[in-house]
Amino acid sequence: MQGDALYPPFLKHSWISRIEGDVLYVTDRRKLPSVHEEVICRNAEEAASAIKAMVTQGGGPLEVALNAMLLASRKGEDLEKAVLVLSSSRPTNTTMKRTLAAIMERYRAGEEMEELIHSAFNYYDELYDAVSDIGASLIEDGDGIITRCFPEHTFLLSVRKAVLSGKAVHVYVPETRPYLQGARLTEPSLRAMGISCSLITDAMNAHFMAEGRIAKVMTASDLALSDRTVVNKVGTLSDAVAARYYGIPYYAFSLSIDKGRTRKDIVMEERSGEEVKSIGGSMIAEKETDALYPAFDIIPPELVSGIITKDGVI
Amino acid sequence: MQGDALYPPFLKHSWISRIEGDVLYVTDRRKLPSVHEEVICRNAEEAASAIKAMVTQGGGPLEVALNAMLLASRKGEDLEKAVLVLSSSRPTNTTMKRTLAAIMERYRAGEEMEELIHSAFNYYDELYDAVSDIGASLIEDGDGIITRCFPEHTFLLSVRKAVLSGKAVHVYVPETRPYLQGARLTEPSLRAMGISCSLITDAMNAHFMAEGRIAKVMTASDLALSDRTVVNKVGTLSDAVAARYYGIPYYAFSLSIDKGRTRKDIVMEERSGEEVKSIGGSMIAEKETDALYPAFDIIPPELVSGIITKDGVI
Repeated sequence: MQGDALYPPFLKHSWISRIEGDVLYVTDRRKLPSVHEEVICRNAEEAASAIKAMVTQGGGPLEVALNAMLLASRKGEDLEKAVLVLSSSRPTNTTMKRTLAAIMERYRAGEEMEELIHSAFNYYDELYDAVSDIGASLIEDGDGIITRCFPEHTFLLSVRKAVLSGKAVHVYVPETRPYLQGARLTEPSLRAMGISCSLITDAMNAHFMAEGRIAKVMTASDLALSDRTVVNKVGTLSDAVAARYYGIPYYAFSLSIDKGRTRKDIVMEERSGEEVKSIGGSMIAEKETDALYPAFDIIPPELVSGIITKDGVI
Repeated sequence: MQGDALYPPFLKHSWISRIEGDVLYVTDRRKLPSVHEEVICRNAEEAASAIKAMVTQGGGPLEVALNAMLLASRKGEDLEKAVLVLSSSRPTNTTMKRTLAAIMERYRAGEEMEELIHSAFNYYDELYDAVSDIGASLIEDGDGIITRCFPEHTFLLSVRKAVLSGKAVHVYVPETRPYLQGARLTEPSLRAMGISCSLITDAMNAHFMAEGRIAKVMTASDLALSDRTVVNKVGTLSDAVAARYYGIPYYAFSLSIDKGRTRKDIVMEERSGEEVKSIGGSMIAEKETDALYPAFDIIPPELVSGIITKDGVI
């Protein structure tokens, strides 16, 4: 795979997943940065299980699914079945689902799976590049930016390009419970790229806005609709509401607008409250404790200043 | 000490601190609920250190300081020195400071320390009772309530009284990083009192408001001014801003309005970002990570629907 020279370590293709022989290795993001461990997937079903179990998340499932299809094809597995099980592993992530559907359509029309997957990787590398050019152009010298969760290639490359062009930027990174993607992935990635950043807890958003330290809220999106509705990690709505109160713009990055859907069609993934009751394997609540984990927020169009896509800001 | 029959276990006087012989035992709230361990303080200086190290927090420092004064008096220590070191242990907690100053004034005028401390405990028991009567009257049947951190006697007794009077209430408890007072103290306390509640992560406030599940935000306050400015645990501003956006009232409880102060006089405690980098002793970030821990939010009057005091809602 080409095009990942600018990427921080955790986003390099081989750090997300890699095929070796007849096995797909998926980096266990739940254990980064302290341990680099890979989960072994022998087929699409095992890859789907890994995605479901949050071994990889954010933009990870897309790359893992592509590699899982490639492996299934090399091993002569039933590709129709493979695409079905992979597509349903994270119901809110429709980019993966639509990408796989498009690949299968061309595959059924006679194209080679090997070539289709290779093109898909290249397509996304070019897309990350194009979207982050636009993201970087929106960032101004001196900006303090709050993000949320692990905002992947689009945001991270935007900030990197802004800094490389001489702009001073400071990123405030909420730790993002329960899985701490902010603390474990985003902050180390920014630091690895030499970008000034501070780790904060999840509800400090309004605090730093009130102090005048924040110029923008910028996050990835798990799903974006053409009416400017955004679906992203729970907490993003809190950021967007606070941004509105303090007159700060909120931008979401999108790899592809889901044009066929309306808000009513969004399938919101329900995750178990049990995931909130532990941190890194240690219990922080009691067995009897009831906990809730709505994994995603829906941010309505009126709170979204713009969606950053390869074609510009919507 | 009388008057704590209604209190959940962690708020019973003997569970906050107790004098035995010439030693003051302070329950280590950082370890609750899994372990009930007490820190031994032999004098006011050690009690102040315990308060500074967050062995106890919220309303705990007030009771610990009262007992520390009592012990210092029994041991014939320099009480002027004792009050000085205790008062400066948590600069934002002015209720403790003012209570100690008032006691010292009467002590200097000839009153007995033993009797003064006894009266102070009784005064606060009666105050908790009066304030929570008003809090309970504001809670309506069917209310979903978001709180923040460990809202102590005032809020917990309000909810208990509301439920005892037949109102159905559900409390959403943010875990409150970095010390997880919500997960470790508030949720177990509510559960011990038989009150329906769910643990949530810190940035889910807007999520549940958007879903229409929240009727009120109610928190304690570390400091409240007569212009209705509230100081409370970081995250409360995020709650109040979101509440405003969704048309939900935000109420803060106050044991005593700090009438002598304006916003400019508030001494904001700065805590170390290192505290954010670990959870229950386990590191969640790397040594090189920069983290920020502004412990408190200032909630401006325009976001505060009312301050609940013994004299009514301001």
